[in-house]
Parts: sequence; C-alpha cells; structure tokens
Amino acid sequence: MKKIINAPERVVEDMLRGMERAHRGLIRVIPESNVVVRADAPVEGKVALVSGGGSGHEPTHGGFVGPGMLDAACAGAVFTSPTPDQMFEASKAVDSGAGVFYVVKNYTGDVLNFEMAGELGEAEGIETDYVVTNDDVAVEDSTYTSGRRGIAGTIFVHKICGAAADDGKDLAGIKELAERVNSHVRSMGMALTSCTPPESGEPIFDIGIGIHGEPGVERQNVAPADQIVDEMLEKILGDSVDFSGSEVAVMVNGMGGTPLMELYVAYSHVADVLEREE
Amino acid sequence: MKKIINAPERVVEDMLRGMERAHRGLIRVIPESNVVVRADAPVEGKVALVSGGGSGHEPTHGGFVGPGMLDAACAGAVFTSPTPDQMFEASKAVDSGAGVFYVVKNYTGDVLNFEMAGELGEAEGIETDYVVTNDDVAVEDSTYTSGRRGIAGTIFVHKICGAAADDGKDLAGIKELAERVNSHVRSMGMALTSCTPPESGEPIFDIGIGIHGEPGVERQNVAPADQIVDEMLEKILGDSVDFSGSEVAVMVNGMGGTPLMELYVAYSHVADVLEREE
Repeated sequence: MKKIINAPERVVEDMLRGMERAHRGLIRVIPESNVVVRADAPVEGKVALVSGGGSGHEPTHGGFVGPGMLDAACAGAVFTSPTPDQMFEASKAVDSGAGVFYVVKNYTGDVLNFEMAGELGEAEGIETDYVVTNDDVAVEDSTYTSGRRGIAGTIFVHKICGAAADDGKDLAGIKELAERVNSHVRSMGMALTSCTPPESGEPIFDIGIGIHGEPGVERQNVAPADQIVDEMLEKILGDSVDFSGSEVAVMVNGMGGTPLMELYVAYSHVADVLEREE
Repeated sequence: MKKIINAPERVVEDMLRGMERAHRGLIRVIPESNVVVRADAPVEGKVALVSGGGSGHEPTHGGFVGPGMLDAACAGAVFTSPTPDQMFEASKAVDSGAGVFYVVKNYTGDVLNFEMAGELGEAEGIETDYVVTNDDVAVEDSTYTSGRRGIAGTIFVHKICGAAADDGKDLAGIKELAERVNSHVRSMGMALTSCTPPESGEPIFDIGIGIHGEPGVERQNVAPADQIVDEMLEKILGDSVDFSGSEVAVMVNGMGGTPLMELYVAYSHVADVLEREE
C-alpha cells in the first residue's frame, strides 16, 4: 500500500488537523470528537444542518461545512459510521435553538447512529429531524444497507437545504425540502479498480463499488467512455423520475482519484445524451 | 491501461469539448486549434495572458482561463508542447491592442514554440512578451529542459499577473511582476507511482517525476507523510530564497490523482514546519 499518511490509526486525526489549518477562519474541529464545525456556529435563529459518515470520501463531509451548506460534519473512522456521541457533540455545537437537521446517507450504521443522536439531543432539549438520502440507482439492498444507498447526489441536499436554512426556513420546512430534493436525485457510480483503505492495506473488492466496495450490478472489461456514460445514464434516466423536459443539474465526480481529463471526456458525452433527451 | 477515454488519439479534443460544455459562458474553445479562450476575450484595454503546454496536467492550463487569470490556454497533445500556430491563434483571439503576455513553463519545446509564436504575432502587429518560469527545486537540467523546470508554482504567476492585468498594468509592468513572482516561488514534486499516458499505455518512469517523468533526485521506499514533507520542505526552504519572517502562500497539490485525505495529512505537517521556521 502506497499512501501519503503517517499511520493508519491516526489518518483521520491528521487529516482533520490539516483541514482545520488550511481553512482557518472558516471551520474549526472539536477536539477529541473529530467533528468539523462552521467557525461562526451556532448561527442565531438558523436551523443547523449536520451530516457525517465514514472518512475516506473527502471532500465528503467536512469539505461541505460553511455558509449555505453544512453547519457541522462528523468524521468517522475510514469507511466506518461516526458514533452517536460525535453526532450529539456536533448538535450541541451548532444548535441555536432553531433545531438541528441531520442529512443521513442510507447506510445502516449511519441511520441507527443519527437516530440515537437525535434521541440524545431531544433529551437535552435540542429539536432534531432528519432525511435519509437514497440516490444510488445501482442496487437495492446491499451488504451494509437495506434499500438504496445514499451516495454522491446527497450533495444537492446539503446545497439546497443549506441555502434554504440560510434563508430562514424552519425545521419542518427543511425536512420537506430535503425529502423533495432526495426524491429527484439519482446517482450511479463505476470504478476502474478497487480502493485500498489504510487500515487493511488491501484492495476491498473484486466486483462492485457502492460506497465502500459493496457488490455492484456488473463487472465488464473497460469500455470506451461514451459507452460507460450511456450505460450509467440509461440506468439513471430509466429510473422512477421523469426528467424529460426538465432543467437538470449534473454532477460528474471522480471520487477523489480520477484525473480531470477523464471527467471532462465523460461529461462531454453526458451533455450530448441529455440534449438528445430534451 | 484503464482510463475513462474513448481513444488515445481523440482524448484532448474530447476533453476540451467537455470543458467547453461544462463551463459555457465562461470559456469557449477555438475549433481546430485546441485553444481555450475566455468567453469575453478580447477584453478592451487589458494585457492578455496566454499560457499552455502539453495536456495531461489538468486543470493546467485551460482550467485557469477566466477573469483575474489567463485569457487563453493552448492545449498540446498529452505531455507534448502546443505548436506555435496554436499560440498564434490564441494571441489573435485575445489581443485587444494592449499586448499579449506568455507565461511559459521552462520546458524546451514550450519555450521555443512560444518564442516563435511571439515572432508570428509581432509580424501581425501584436505586441508580445513572456516569462519563463522555473520553480522546480528538484533538479537542474533534465531530460527535456536546460535549467530548472517550470511546474505547479507557475499558478502564482497566472494568479498574481492575471489580477494585475485586470487592474490595468501594462505589458512591461506585467513582465516585471511575472519575473518577480517567479523568482520567489519554489516547488517540489514527489510521486508514489508512475503515470501512464493514454497514447503509450505504459507507465513512463521508474525513477523521477519532473513534469513528464524526467529523472528525479532520489528513489526511496514509501516514508511516513511527515518525513516526506520534511524532505521536500528542506529542499524548498534551503534554496536561494530566504522565506524566513515572510508571509508565504502554500499550495499542496495532488497532480490530479491524490486523495484529498492525503493532501490534508501532508498539509498539517507543512503548517507545523513553517510555523517553527517563522
């Protein structure tokens, strides 16, 4: 395993320390908790948005903390859910009295832990609610999740609900909006190779990608970019949302390790296909 | 070779097409020339900044075209200098009469071709001048370059001279500023593995990184991140610029394929060392 790290067991702490120092004035990290918080939190009168999940998906989630997006993000160990305690610490740090809204990607550990954090919060008089995102069209019910997984499309919930919270929408309104956004987002991933988490030092899958190498739908030889895009868009556009005639926001993301050149090559064909569908 | 491309011979065109469509309104691409131009070029009364080089280093250079940075960027084939014709097309597209300034990273092909483009421009009444950046502290005189290479630190020239050009600085002033910035920038790269250009489909080096796999200074087993940072900073801080007591701008960049987690881990120690040096 070749990685620019000091030791697998301190990779999350080292990362958060670097993140805090690189973005001083924008964020701070709660010591011992591995929680990234907006520097000016709590923001008076505003519903606070909190998300989180395993580390190793950066910029998810700490990179999305800031005005118009998240108020806090809980960083679990690599590919491991954060604990209810972390989520509770995050909630206390950002609640201004207007309530805390959790954006939870569907993954069994995350869902359970955010639910428990909500109960801890309620016991301390912090009003909470949450959405569970499930944008992944690839598979129903995978290794760690029942139902569809929440993956990269969750960023649209952070962004749209973050803006609405800045505009003063209340907790019930944010929840309604989050569910509406989630119901209109569809995502699909593909990978050319496996990833290697620092702790194990071994590639984690032979087939599949999910969000942590869970089994996927198909394994095939590398195809031309246009064909890869066609297959993914067929799955996305053929799903339960009728996108025809709509304006759509498209995010092509490289999961942290794909050269920009390849993302632009892919996007070129995405734009072709979407214009044809219009 | 596993890459999200259609065919090695059309990878640059596909990429530029995707780039143009992803950033419509900000940039346009001159057909047949593989030149990315600011959408509103030429900007009246402003010195125009043009850079360029081989593709495969994205976001360098097309990603830096826009207000406050470059007016145009010439995309060569992968790891291959753009031609004087491309640079001349770029110059014609952006010159408003205030002249065109070339930001050239020291690499023999780039330097020769930009010099030739300048001559083509002068013959058509376009005033041109240029800077050759050489920020790489790793090696003197490498495979394709005499003297030090121009690498990632060149972005500070784009940024600072781009802002100055927006503020109305004239061609002679931009040149002076570019040379001053270049003389205060030092960079160093390291790689964990080789890269594989699309055309050859083979890794290009056993030792070294340069900007195209040219021989480096040392090959060693993977060390802890802090030690890697120490060795690189020792070379940078021990070079001919006395940074002590200065405010410095630090860029940690992953050359398009390094996870953000590892960059933050590295930056954490960079900040430690620089604070100690202060």
